[in-house]
Amino acid sequence: RRGVIEAGQARQQALDRFARVFLVGCGPGDVNLLTLQAYHCIRQAEVVLYDHLVPQQILDLVPEGVEQVYVGKQKQAHSLRQDDINQLMLGYARQGLRVARLKSGDPYVFGRGAEEARFLLQQGIAVEVIAGLSSAVAGPAAAGIPLTARGYAANVSIVSAHLAGSRLNTDWLPMLQRPDHTTVVLMGLSFAAEIAAQALAAGVPADLPVAIVSNASRENQQTIIT
Amino acid sequence: RRGVIEAGQARQQALDRFARVFLVGCGPGDVNLLTLQAYHCIRQAEVVLYDHLVPQQILDLVPEGVEQVYVGKQKQAHSLRQDDINQLMLGYARQGLRVARLKSGDPYVFGRGAEEARFLLQQGIAVEVIAGLSSAVAGPAAAGIPLTARGYAANVSIVSAHLAGSRLNTDWLPMLQRPDHTTVVLMGLSFAAEIAAQALAAGVPADLPVAIVSNASRENQQTIIT
Repeated sequence: RRGVIEAGQARQQALDRFARVFLVGCGPGDVNLLTLQAYHCIRQAEVVLYDHLVPQQILDLVPEGVEQVYVGKQKQAHSLRQDDINQLMLGYARQGLRVARLKSGDPYVFGRGAEEARFLLQQGIAVEVIAGLSSAVAGPAAAGIPLTARGYAANVSIVSAHLAGSRLNTDWLPMLQRPDHTTVVLMGLSFAAEIAAQALAAGVPADLPVAIVSNASRENQQTIIT
Repeated sequence: RRGVIEAGQARQQALDRFARVFLVGCGPGDVNLLTLQAYHCIRQAEVVLYDHLVPQQILDLVPEGVEQVYVGKQKQAHSLRQDDINQLMLGYARQGLRVARLKSGDPYVFGRGAEEARFLLQQGIAVEVIAGLSSAVAGPAAAGIPLTARGYAANVSIVSAHLAGSRLNTDWLPMLQRPDHTTVVLMGLSFAAEIAAQALAAGVPADLPVAIVSNASRENQQTIIT
């Protein structure tokens, strides 16, 4: 075991030569679902910026004395705009600090990781993106639901119910009619009733099996099968 | 750090009271992309069954003296049928051994995890599925490609190019015409030329950006952007 932990640290040191900002995917919430690489990155951070959904259990890994900056965006209470977050990261990186930007899920799946990475690269800051378990995959798994299974679903779509400006996105509703297909709807909880009504109006059969999973992999996980 | 490793072990011990077979998602290949939970599970396995794509670096984590059984299925050389794999897992579990069934990627994304879990549950064997980084997400990330990005792609589909019997699946080709959409094609490498020809014939524009990634996250990773 020691060998792997040391290998992880060596890899982290190698990355450090290049990257100053790490966009770290933290998975759906359970600290045990962090990757080894994310774990090492958090342990070796010199400043941490974290989102609303990153749980305390993961923040507890941040070494003592390392500044933890909350940059979460909650609905109806946008505490920081994206530009402000970008400027914060840039400022810390220019101070020479090793910045760990903690995101729930995966940075490249509805995580705005692409925008943040592009901004930093344009400013000449090296960025390393550390993949995390997307809740699109880990959420259903935590509820015991396979995304694919022979004879039931041969492909998968991942959509966001929530567009910029808190609007409901319904472009994906026709996908629900595809046979042999699983649709994973992220950020849909607060729109659940509206989604159901619009899906029925669009001709989606009322007996389509639906699972609603909230707080996947966390102690307060709830699953409703309907 | 010790605290987390002990917490991981405690969690593993709690799971052990219930589960005899662990279907462990091992991610795309880089050992640093294992989850902490997968890592602990491998370290505490009493017998390991592993697939073709699980790399040596991960098998090196298996404790000394623990039997490692290759159950990989390679194209044109199906060494073991699914039934045989199921029976093997069942046999080891009935011996009272803690079985770690290592799968590349995530067990519930084209991993046949659903079939194996169902079989074992039907036989009265407790099963725990440990989510892993699906190459559908981690593969593009390893090539620097965000699956979603504002203004470029608002949703994602994950499809398999390979159906049972080595047939090419082309049901998903119309998705390539969707605006604001990323399509991830798994198990498509050996079909790449055929997919391109059929996509063009179906009216997909010739300038659609395509990335071909092989051995994502491994030392021999190759990326072609075309």
